[in-house]
Amino acid sequence: MAASTASRLSPPRPTASSPYPRPPPRLSRFSSLRAAKMEAVLSIGTHVIPHPRKVETGGEDAFFVGGDGGGVFAIADGVSGWAEKNVNPALFSREVMANSSTFLKDEEASNDPQILLMKAHAATSSIGSATVIIAMLEKTGTLKIASVGDCGLKIIRKGQVMFSTYPQEHYFDCPYQISSEAIGQTYKDALVCTVNLMEGDMIVSGSDGFFDNIFDQEILAVISESPGIDEAAKGLAELARKHSVDVRFDSPYSIEARSRGFDVPWWKKLLGAKLTGGKMDDITVIVAQVKTVAVPDDEGTGVEQEKGVEQVTVAATASAEQNE
Amino acid sequence: MAASTASRLSPPRPTASSPYPRPPPRLSRFSSLRAAKMEAVLSIGTHVIPHPRKVETGGEDAFFVGGDGGGVFAIADGVSGWAEKNVNPALFSREVMANSSTFLKDEEASNDPQILLMKAHAATSSIGSATVIIAMLEKTGTLKIASVGDCGLKIIRKGQVMFSTYPQEHYFDCPYQISSEAIGQTYKDALVCTVNLMEGDMIVSGSDGFFDNIFDQEILAVISESPGIDEAAKGLAELARKHSVDVRFDSPYSIEARSRGFDVPWWKKLLGAKLTGGKMDDITVIVAQVKTVAVPDDEGTGVEQEKGVEQVTVAATASAEQNE
Repeated sequence: MAASTASRLSPPRPTASSPYPRPPPRLSRFSSLRAAKMEAVLSIGTHVIPHPRKVETGGEDAFFVGGDGGGVFAIADGVSGWAEKNVNPALFSREVMANSSTFLKDEEASNDPQILLMKAHAATSSIGSATVIIAMLEKTGTLKIASVGDCGLKIIRKGQVMFSTYPQEHYFDCPYQISSEAIGQTYKDALVCTVNLMEGDMIVSGSDGFFDNIFDQEILAVISESPGIDEAAKGLAELARKHSVDVRFDSPYSIEARSRGFDVPWWKKLLGAKLTGGKMDDITVIVAQVKTVAVPDDEGTGVEQEKGVEQVTVAATASAEQNE
Repeated sequence: MAASTASRLSPPRPTASSPYPRPPPRLSRFSSLRAAKMEAVLSIGTHVIPHPRKVETGGEDAFFVGGDGGGVFAIADGVSGWAEKNVNPALFSREVMANSSTFLKDEEASNDPQILLMKAHAATSSIGSATVIIAMLEKTGTLKIASVGDCGLKIIRKGQVMFSTYPQEHYFDCPYQISSEAIGQTYKDALVCTVNLMEGDMIVSGSDGFFDNIFDQEILAVISESPGIDEAAKGLAELARKHSVDVRFDSPYSIEARSRGFDVPWWKKLLGAKLTGGKMDDITVIVAQVKTVAVPDDEGTGVEQEKGVEQVTVAATASAEQNE
């Protein structure tokens, strides 16, 4: 049983002498930035591909990128079930994103993604519901996240995923969602967490239509092969799109469906068949890279060394691909 | 393609009238606790089962539980490769845990798991290396986590996993590790994150010997069936132990091994065989439940309503099962 007998390996060349010279205490994980008046910012690329049957309307995902230094982004995924009630599911998600962008001017909301979610939700008058994720990077390098539902966010450091959100759901394929109705969830139901980021970290965030159709190893491969964040976002969205319409692809979605008891009929199973296929859905991808910039300090002696941020405020539907 | 055509469901009975009565703004996620002088504490259960060949020595995992209100716990997993150099791999992990417990008296370290890790590591004189996770619950309900390597921590809310750490590794089965040697990782390599917890949330933390041998759905099942945290910790450790010695169990470890290209020889594959089996290892499980207690306020009018914390300081090896 090879899997059980493999021992954990120590790093190469340990010697039993020479005690490790430890660094002096550092009180802040980004203290080198602070001392030099360095600030963490995000360089952001985005890509949206609507559901194949929703190309003309642009789909029901919405997102925005904004904040001083481009340090805030958010995605809202309108719940499609509202179409059965003659409600356009895109209206709610787009209004929540537009309101989120507006409330960034509010000091309290601009520092807390959960408060931003609360205020944007309260100000939304459209009928509908949506899953939402909001992320904010502090200048010190701390990323603050608030998420309701199954939009996702992963952080890649040194070629491996080192952080990921989990979807919240009532049951399979029915995610937590903020809503125009009292029965929905609110900011109080959000997963609220922070992660300390380092220069060079990559953030990959997306709607469930993205993460249901792509595996972590594929995300890592596309990121490593892409010359820049715009190409990475486009490459990731297109790979997820390709999988989403492939009935033979054993997607994260179909694997999860089978683990929940959804599968082909028993007589097909006897013939060796199983439930496979991607999930056709709107696909939104945001790729952000953590960079540092030197900013003028209080005496104005600092110089902006690098402008790593594309400071775009793209409320609502922006940059949907109209044809695949 | 059923998987691709399932639509996301809106919650039952949405009506297109009656705008949702939103609650007034609340500035803190635990503001109800603060207003009533309520504090979040942890009720903690633990269970350790050493590797079958290490029962006499107690294995190489170590852990401690401590802090005011039992709000701090940590696990260190000694890297077994040191035995090949005639170094007892348990010495380093046990000393790091003992030092972590000691440095809780340090005000700065007692509020920051990364600082605690730094100081405990710097004070450790044993030769060896270990993966480490440290978690601290603030009275406001925020859980702070610092992790180097592949010890894990998951948070369960309302019957579902809503947060999980990811392992960090150099390559398959060689985790990031703090070390007596300069080649190892330090507190600066730690994943550092926080999660806002709610009353009733369950935390399940463990060494890789636990998480490599159990699936999320099994963790949820054991938690839901257990009458208390002690029984939950014992039930989880025993299920992981059972899987770890089962050569036919398709464990998270064997699935991961196959995905990395480790498998049975090609001629066995032609016969339908695949790499399976659990991973024999030390198994440490900590189960913690978030509770709230009322504490005397500044005027001394508060009453302690519930004592949910078993305030145990268990440095180093504690409570290893000697025989399974």
